[in-house]
Amino acid sequence: MSKNSPSPLPSPEHIFQTLNAHHRTATLKTAIELELFTAIDEGNHSVSDLAKRLEASERGVRILSDHLVITGFLAKENSRYRLTEESALFLSKRSPQYLGTIAEFLTSPHHYENTAHLIEAVRRGGTANPKGHNREPNDDVWVSFARSMAPITIPAANFIARTVGGQDARSVRVLDVAAGHGMYGITIAKHHRKAQITALDWPAVLAIAKENAAKAGVADRYATLPGSVFEADLGEGYDLVLLTNIFHHFDQNTCVTLMRRIHQALRSGGRAVTLEFVPNDDRVSPPTEAAFSLLMLMGTDAGDAYTFAEYHQMFREAGFPETTFHPIPGMPQELLISRKP
Amino acid sequence: MSKNSPSPLPSPEHIFQTLNAHHRTATLKTAIELELFTAIDEGNHSVSDLAKRLEASERGVRILSDHLVITGFLAKENSRYRLTEESALFLSKRSPQYLGTIAEFLTSPHHYENTAHLIEAVRRGGTANPKGHNREPNDDVWVSFARSMAPITIPAANFIARTVGGQDARSVRVLDVAAGHGMYGITIAKHHRKAQITALDWPAVLAIAKENAAKAGVADRYATLPGSVFEADLGEGYDLVLLTNIFHHFDQNTCVTLMRRIHQALRSGGRAVTLEFVPNDDRVSPPTEAAFSLLMLMGTDAGDAYTFAEYHQMFREAGFPETTFHPIPGMPQELLISRKP
Repeated sequence: MSKNSPSPLPSPEHIFQTLNAHHRTATLKTAIELELFTAIDEGNHSVSDLAKRLEASERGVRILSDHLVITGFLAKENSRYRLTEESALFLSKRSPQYLGTIAEFLTSPHHYENTAHLIEAVRRGGTANPKGHNREPNDDVWVSFARSMAPITIPAANFIARTVGGQDARSVRVLDVAAGHGMYGITIAKHHRKAQITALDWPAVLAIAKENAAKAGVADRYATLPGSVFEADLGEGYDLVLLTNIFHHFDQNTCVTLMRRIHQALRSGGRAVTLEFVPNDDRVSPPTEAAFSLLMLMGTDAGDAYTFAEYHQMFREAGFPETTFHPIPGMPQELLISRKP
Repeated sequence: MSKNSPSPLPSPEHIFQTLNAHHRTATLKTAIELELFTAIDEGNHSVSDLAKRLEASERGVRILSDHLVITGFLAKENSRYRLTEESALFLSKRSPQYLGTIAEFLTSPHHYENTAHLIEAVRRGGTANPKGHNREPNDDVWVSFARSMAPITIPAANFIARTVGGQDARSVRVLDVAAGHGMYGITIAKHHRKAQITALDWPAVLAIAKENAAKAGVADRYATLPGSVFEADLGEGYDLVLLTNIFHHFDQNTCVTLMRRIHQALRSGGRAVTLEFVPNDDRVSPPTEAAFSLLMLMGTDAGDAYTFAEYHQMFREAGFPETTFHPIPGMPQELLISRKP
């Protein structure tokens, strides 16, 4: 009386599942908001205990939890729910690596609105949103980004801090471009006690970066520079410039223009450090990196998930002869390091 | 310069992908609306040819098509896109099995609205929508259902027509409850030349069933009975009653009440034929059947995806001692057959 193996016939099941894939977003978002994962981590495993703890209905908690078993975020045995390794680490508020806050940004009304207008974006070749150029302040979006996305930066920020080295006695001057939450620069400051960070972003966003720098105990080595990377006086002689998740917002010419400004700001021998979603040349793998281009179609005028070959060429045009490629363990992002001759 | 294997570290990638899973719904829906699959089937394989045919931008078509490769609906080789077996069969309008119309119902504003209120549904234990009882006409929803979902019924409708047999000379009287598009009853009429169908549904929905019966050439054996299965005079002496996708809208007591009315309407030896999403006893497998309960939480006051054990017990209470279980090849649904003693 059960059916477990998929049918060998061609089946519309995958189409049906995909047209309902937005349910997967909704159940994960809802479970994070209700603190379901935290409640299980606290020792509530039955529907009735969970319903009490979440102040929700038993029917609702059962169906929500079952759906999260189907999507791989919970395990179920004898009607009791357990966390998976991943949900224990990342989705329980008791974990120091909790990153449930990312749901706020990724499922914000801004993103749902862009997704609802995908057909227009495909027709016109760019976002249906009038702020798609990303060259002026857009505080609603970027303050939300800075507040919610900081925790997911930890693996990449640590990887960057280790990869760029610099444990020597000499002071290291770092420019963090479009710093957002500031975590990439702040992590370097924590790893390198002589690092001096200058964070550039719009004023409302920099306020959050400064809060984070203070919490991390590096405020005395943390300066801010409000404005646009295309217009601000960036200064010069930097040892490192961090370019995390910025190029993907722009077309290739704009990326080259930006990288030329970075070239001017670096000392000779200094390095531009780019963190990006970099798909393979086929543009359809790895899946998360490749899928990122859709967000750029829906949300920007001309941004993209560029391949390594494209970055290498753009950065060469901007004065960096060689760029090296460093996949980040455990994260669907890659690091590109370009040294100014 | 490429990264192909998943990292062995615990990674937030699945969380990131799931919070973006609504993009999968949007790309499939958009590709169906733009007729991308049909355009490829017509011989357009490059971005430029597809962009011309769809009257859309090259950037938009490339990024949309790449996303559909990632989600498994297209293949890509040397920058040229091809249909998969599944998309050729079900998503090209040139295929007789085209079912792209199901996107209209599954991604309707009604369903998105319910999904947006999932957290309220979990808290209260039922839909946030005031029409969750499903016992009065709700033409916006059910006319859309009847118009868009007919093509996906074909495998199950054929399976039902074959399974219930009846190729003998005797006339077969069939009551099709909540007939919708009418395809289940109509398919029986096409298989069995002596079948007489009575379709019950709300008047606006029956108009569509009648159209479909006329197209199928069975209008002369197709009667309609407007109203609610809980209130209408169903008549009696039926050989078969079809109960396709109806029980899941209601709580168990209501299901028993409904099945008692069916018992009265059947002749002795007649059969009630139930088509449903029937998960295993664990309620988390198979995935599509089990996930269906979420739709019922979001859209109904007390509906569910019931297990076979639950149906068996409910139908026994309604006067059917035994019910048999028949998985439908190629479809995530199951058939339950209950004979009146």
